[in-house]
Amino acid sequence: MPLPALAKGEADLVLPDFSSQKFFGQSIDGKTLLTLGLLVTLAGIAFGLVIYAQLRRLPVHRAMLEVSDLIYETCKTYLLTQAKFILILWVCIAAVMVAYFGFLRGDHTDAGTAAMLKAEGLVEYGKATQVISILAFSLVGIAGSYAVAWFGMRVNTFANSRTAMASLGGKARPVYAIPLKAGMSIGMVLISVELFIMLCILLFVPRNLAGPCFIGFAIGESLGAAALRVAGGIFTKIADIGADLMKIVFKIKEDDARNPGVIADCVGDNAGDSVGPTADGFETYGVTGVALITFILLAVANPVIQIQLLVWIFVMRLLMVVTSALSYFIAEGFSAKRYATHKLMNFEVPLTLLVWVASVTSIAATYLASYVLIGNINGNSSLWWILATIITCGTLAGAVIPEVTKIFTSTHSGHVREVVTASKEGGASLNVLSGLTAGNFSGFWVGGVTIGGLMALAYGISLIGGTETGLATIMIPQSTAIFAFGLVAFGFLGMGPVTIAVDSYGPVTDNAQSVYELSLIETHADIQDDIRKHYDTHADFEHAKGLLEENDGAGNTFKATAKPVLIGTAVVGATTLIFSIIMLLTNGLTANVDKLSILHAPFLLGIIGGVSVIYWFSGASMQAVITGAYRAVEFIKKNIKLEGVERANVEDSKKVVAICTKFAQAGMFNIFLTIFFITLAAAFVDEFFFIGFLIGIAVSGLFQAIFMANAGGAWDNAKKIVETELKAKGTPLHDACVVGDTVGDPFKDTSSVAMNPIIKFATLFGLLAVELAITLKTPDGHASPLRLVLAGSFFLIAVVFILRSFYGMKIEGSKSDD
Amino acid sequence: MPLPALAKGEADLVLPDFSSQKFFGQSIDGKTLLTLGLLVTLAGIAFGLVIYAQLRRLPVHRAMLEVSDLIYETCKTYLLTQAKFILILWVCIAAVMVAYFGFLRGDHTDAGTAAMLKAEGLVEYGKATQVISILAFSLVGIAGSYAVAWFGMRVNTFANSRTAMASLGGKARPVYAIPLKAGMSIGMVLISVELFIMLCILLFVPRNLAGPCFIGFAIGESLGAAALRVAGGIFTKIADIGADLMKIVFKIKEDDARNPGVIADCVGDNAGDSVGPTADGFETYGVTGVALITFILLAVANPVIQIQLLVWIFVMRLLMVVTSALSYFIAEGFSAKRYATHKLMNFEVPLTLLVWVASVTSIAATYLASYVLIGNINGNSSLWWILATIITCGTLAGAVIPEVTKIFTSTHSGHVREVVTASKEGGASLNVLSGLTAGNFSGFWVGGVTIGGLMALAYGISLIGGTETGLATIMIPQSTAIFAFGLVAFGFLGMGPVTIAVDSYGPVTDNAQSVYELSLIETHADIQDDIRKHYDTHADFEHAKGLLEENDGAGNTFKATAKPVLIGTAVVGATTLIFSIIMLLTNGLTANVDKLSILHAPFLLGIIGGVSVIYWFSGASMQAVITGAYRAVEFIKKNIKLEGVERANVEDSKKVVAICTKFAQAGMFNIFLTIFFITLAAAFVDEFFFIGFLIGIAVSGLFQAIFMANAGGAWDNAKKIVETELKAKGTPLHDACVVGDTVGDPFKDTSSVAMNPIIKFATLFGLLAVELAITLKTPDGHASPLRLVLAGSFFLIAVVFILRSFYGMKIEGSKSDD
Repeated sequence: MPLPALAKGEADLVLPDFSSQKFFGQSIDGKTLLTLGLLVTLAGIAFGLVIYAQLRRLPVHRAMLEVSDLIYETCKTYLLTQAKFILILWVCIAAVMVAYFGFLRGDHTDAGTAAMLKAEGLVEYGKATQVISILAFSLVGIAGSYAVAWFGMRVNTFANSRTAMASLGGKARPVYAIPLKAGMSIGMVLISVELFIMLCILLFVPRNLAGPCFIGFAIGESLGAAALRVAGGIFTKIADIGADLMKIVFKIKEDDARNPGVIADCVGDNAGDSVGPTADGFETYGVTGVALITFILLAVANPVIQIQLLVWIFVMRLLMVVTSALSYFIAEGFSAKRYATHKLMNFEVPLTLLVWVASVTSIAATYLASYVLIGNINGNSSLWWILATIITCGTLAGAVIPEVTKIFTSTHSGHVREVVTASKEGGASLNVLSGLTAGNFSGFWVGGVTIGGLMALAYGISLIGGTETGLATIMIPQSTAIFAFGLVAFGFLGMGPVTIAVDSYGPVTDNAQSVYELSLIETHADIQDDIRKHYDTHADFEHAKGLLEENDGAGNTFKATAKPVLIGTAVVGATTLIFSIIMLLTNGLTANVDKLSILHAPFLLGIIGGVSVIYWFSGASMQAVITGAYRAVEFIKKNIKLEGVERANVEDSKKVVAICTKFAQAGMFNIFLTIFFITLAAAFVDEFFFIGFLIGIAVSGLFQAIFMANAGGAWDNAKKIVETELKAKGTPLHDACVVGDTVGDPFKDTSSVAMNPIIKFATLFGLLAVELAITLKTPDGHASPLRLVLAGSFFLIAVVFILRSFYGMKIEGSKSDD
Repeated sequence: MPLPALAKGEADLVLPDFSSQKFFGQSIDGKTLLTLGLLVTLAGIAFGLVIYAQLRRLPVHRAMLEVSDLIYETCKTYLLTQAKFILILWVCIAAVMVAYFGFLRGDHTDAGTAAMLKAEGLVEYGKATQVISILAFSLVGIAGSYAVAWFGMRVNTFANSRTAMASLGGKARPVYAIPLKAGMSIGMVLISVELFIMLCILLFVPRNLAGPCFIGFAIGESLGAAALRVAGGIFTKIADIGADLMKIVFKIKEDDARNPGVIADCVGDNAGDSVGPTADGFETYGVTGVALITFILLAVANPVIQIQLLVWIFVMRLLMVVTSALSYFIAEGFSAKRYATHKLMNFEVPLTLLVWVASVTSIAATYLASYVLIGNINGNSSLWWILATIITCGTLAGAVIPEVTKIFTSTHSGHVREVVTASKEGGASLNVLSGLTAGNFSGFWVGGVTIGGLMALAYGISLIGGTETGLATIMIPQSTAIFAFGLVAFGFLGMGPVTIAVDSYGPVTDNAQSVYELSLIETHADIQDDIRKHYDTHADFEHAKGLLEENDGAGNTFKATAKPVLIGTAVVGATTLIFSIIMLLTNGLTANVDKLSILHAPFLLGIIGGVSVIYWFSGASMQAVITGAYRAVEFIKKNIKLEGVERANVEDSKKVVAICTKFAQAGMFNIFLTIFFITLAAAFVDEFFFIGFLIGIAVSGLFQAIFMANAGGAWDNAKKIVETELKAKGTPLHDACVVGDTVGDPFKDTSSVAMNPIIKFATLFGLLAVELAITLKTPDGHASPLRLVLAGSFFLIAVVFILRSFYGMKIEGSKSDD
């Protein structure tokens, strides 16, 4: 395949013919091998569904079931509203896709490609087919994100009440096992569905139509994930702050059933900590995969090597499904034996064990698959271990980054202790400053030293062998570092279902505590008899609450440590995607490469532009939370009844949910349309400005996300120390810590976590936008004036939404419809 | 002059012979013209000293004089201690300079240069002369920063009590005129001294020794400014938070004489808002000048054009001294007439007028000087207006950026109002979040849209005429955009003395209020008789206090608007400096230019490294404030006496000053040595990594500084609204706003303002460090392994100081020596 073909856009990429290459000593061809892989994905889905069914059958008391059903029903309403909004956003994207692929784009097949298609016996597809494919698969992507998110929410709202119920039994293990089971169910289904769809595109879509399908699929996933992350992040923190501030004002406890904000808080835990992350996880796996596929097609010229690398990538992902299941059984086997009769246990121990077992088996699988599949790629017997080692850097990092993160956020961390100490004399002032400081330091250590160092290490390994026997022998030499970065991202994600499972553990345990309180089970008449009769157990309520509280802490820790991993994949993954754009713009690195240099002013200006978008985004996402929380607090203060009632009335609870939904949607809408139009504007103004812009967004987004996540984590656990270790609830010290915690809420759970899908959406959609922009040329090949006019117009539209993201979302003037 | 000579380091640059070129129709040569310029600088210095003498002679009551003398004496002690620390830091830098210039550097004159020197009749200087020159001028730079800082502090501590005294007269104008006079005195002396030194180097140092002198001078200034900024910023905010929190705890008013923290607060106003900014201003003018001189010598090959551009640059700077004096007289003439008899006035009106008059006259002078001096440069009659217009972009921005900043920080700003509103239902939590949001939005609008847009505009203008009749005809074509950026920075600074004057206004008015309160003048026996007899006036105390309060508000506003201008110059100025390094590394853009591309992984990794340093710096500078403030609060709480005493005892006040000094110095020391070693490490690990590193620091530093400055400004004025407009002192709303204000204190006055000198120090010192690093080669021209060993060692030393900047500065374990 000649180099010039590389200059094509994503949509022109032609997959190699997998059946042309044999594996395992000529015994099986690539196509058959991947087709067998479909069985693995089906097995994975089955695994998830079996657990789901098991969870559903677990015993649960009616009072608890009622609460979890209410949470589920409210979540359902929220998700259905989201669907409408996502489809509106999809129309915007679809318009751009139709404009480009359907109209502006020239004849999509040049003479060389046409000849190649003919030689390989492939049909040439017209524009219409391309457009329809890309649109259809963007809907598949959205549907995928949305469906796994829904599935996760459904599983969690089964598991929450079952966990609460299990706590009554007095034993620790079921309280741990149920949320983990729920997490594994989600993780297996998520990864398997993802792989299933991607394999189907690889195997069953015509080879010269797979490009549009992949790009459409990735954009769709990314759109769905970004929207669900942003809206979920805003929703959950409005509810959380609303409920938290009531603790100071009325001195009521967490999850007090009389507080009409509590149901919204439970729904928020699902919307923010389950729906958002699940969609995000689905997107991350998909987009990283698409980035690598694209990279391989663009940077590797030899179709034989293309096939080997692609098969290698997919086999490793399939093996991940197997090793994750295996790790789960090993870790569960250990914990079942060890904790069978314990009344108390350290929940973090088996979770940590699971993560490390998964790391080790995943790394073993990586080396094994690499040796077997590419042990002698291009006649070179050392590339396999270079590649496997680069991936291992990522996989190890997936286990190491959480440990580094704990230095800033765990209850034993010097920074968290400092937050508590500072609050003693300095109140909320020094509490806030100290938390910000923790976040800043973590930016240096996690973002710079750990993630930066890791990328440097991968780069170093990618240089082994140089241009003579190294990676440069099988791909464009300038691209080896980027391939290494892409593989690091791939490695980060090497524990797939387990990573998702430990991240999903948190919302279940959080909800379980709330379900317990809201069920008011202790106040039921004859409750002991009831439980003994129906569930054959004696309930120790105090012990049960203690277990749930402890379990919630473990959930928080693992939720906090998963964040930097996801954001880490965003920046390394985005680098790989940006490379695709660069290949397009430089005609396969043959022209204009000097414009990617810092000496080219537009590139530098683009970096400045990109960074500024991250600052705006941080502000805009917090603004929605501020106003929503203000309205929620205002409403709750006015309507809460503390005397003579057991629980808040359902109407009031629904009202709080409505406030959360309203501001979540308004915020998401402004944010999303800004990103959409500003990406278009940046792509249209100058393509090399745009490269800088994406780099600015990715790098700045990485640090901002880490800073915000860990500052939030530090405040959260500082409060926890005051509550559990110092037992100082209700004191001025606790009040000071609640201030920090509420500041940290949107830091860690709104702005920070949304950076990942936002970075990826901007990059993916930018790929399309920039292709569209460069078609606008004057006859002599210069950028058409129309292009600048459009850039200006898109920028002005973005400005409208940017202004709305503050002035339209201010407290003054906003209404809560009451 | 052949191109290869460009590949030399800064120290090899040879100035052109200014006497070889005539100006004004052959009537005067460049050297004579610049020598006449020395007279202008002497006149400027005289102007400053005359005002100084006038201020000193103004009437002041003994009680007030005592307070201002106490503040001066305490400041003196602080500054003397600083001197010792700065000299210790200088030893580190000097060691590097001696190592490089004295030993490691090869024979400094190659055959071509030697021939040129001979042809031009210049003596070749040995290594020793070079080393001595560079060291000597680095001391001159430090002495310059330090001396103007001292002068400013001395002027302010005269002006503070005179302003307080003037308020008793009942008329508004003197209360305005005195601080402005003080500011103009500082501004004129600062700029004139700067220009005097630089002209002396240009005129009296041998042409082939001027390079080392300039680089030494710039590094020295930058070292002095960075140290004084960081230490001053920490000092002032420890004192400020310490004093502020007492307002909540004991419900005492601002500047209550019984609070032992108040003297420290007054000293801090000078250390942080006068000493720091004055040294910073001195450094900014010097370094921007050196950057442009270097740029011209590196990028312009023709010595005739070099002379024309250099003379042009310096004449414009000299004219700035004249136009600033003129603007001052115009604005003062207006205000003297308009407000002669007013009892009240809006202090912001004449200040704004002054800024705009200065802008307009400065722009006029720019066009005039450009037309006269370079109206026909290289036979091209359009370049003069292209260049003048680029500078005007900067000058206008110097007036526009403050206006944009007000959108986020003024008391009329929607963001500031939102901070107040949010605090009503949301208390400290939503107050803090809302202020952070204001800062984030301002990052987008000020950093991205305004400064980024302005750079884009300058870039656009620099393209006019293209390679045929544009800037590319007189310099290396790839360098025109960078020259444009350098000129924007130059333009930013086009109102020199006026910019410094309005920035210096704040600390005087702030101090004046404190001096008034601390003098307890109202309680003196027979005070009315005393004042009537000695000062021929009747004192209206309430009116006087009102005037001082209002004036303080105006001072705050102008102090806040000056910040983004200074940080703006840092990033555009740094870009120009980075270009010098690039020229060196690419042998004058003839080799290795591909390594400045985003495709070169070390460059991308460098950006990540640079950004991480900014996050660390933000955290480390705040940590010093947190611990210091904690210790100060602890001490004050324990020792404050509210009953039966009029004022705090002097010992206690000194103790608080000692706490501030201690943590300011410890913090500064860790920070400075980290920057020193991490810059060395980055330069040694890889020179293109290092370019990315500097870009990362500059761009990320710009946004972080704007974010922090404006969040701080928003909180500050939100509190002001609650105090003055809502008259709600002492309410929970006020308490919530004090929390935000104290969080904002180190944001705006410690971390944010120190970014500018830190960015410039890293860049300037990096210039030296990278030259040093690349001398370490193996015989076959590859980087020597020693280089990586050194990089690793420097990094480990940096890590020690980074760890100390948190673990050595924690509250727990730190002692306040009491």
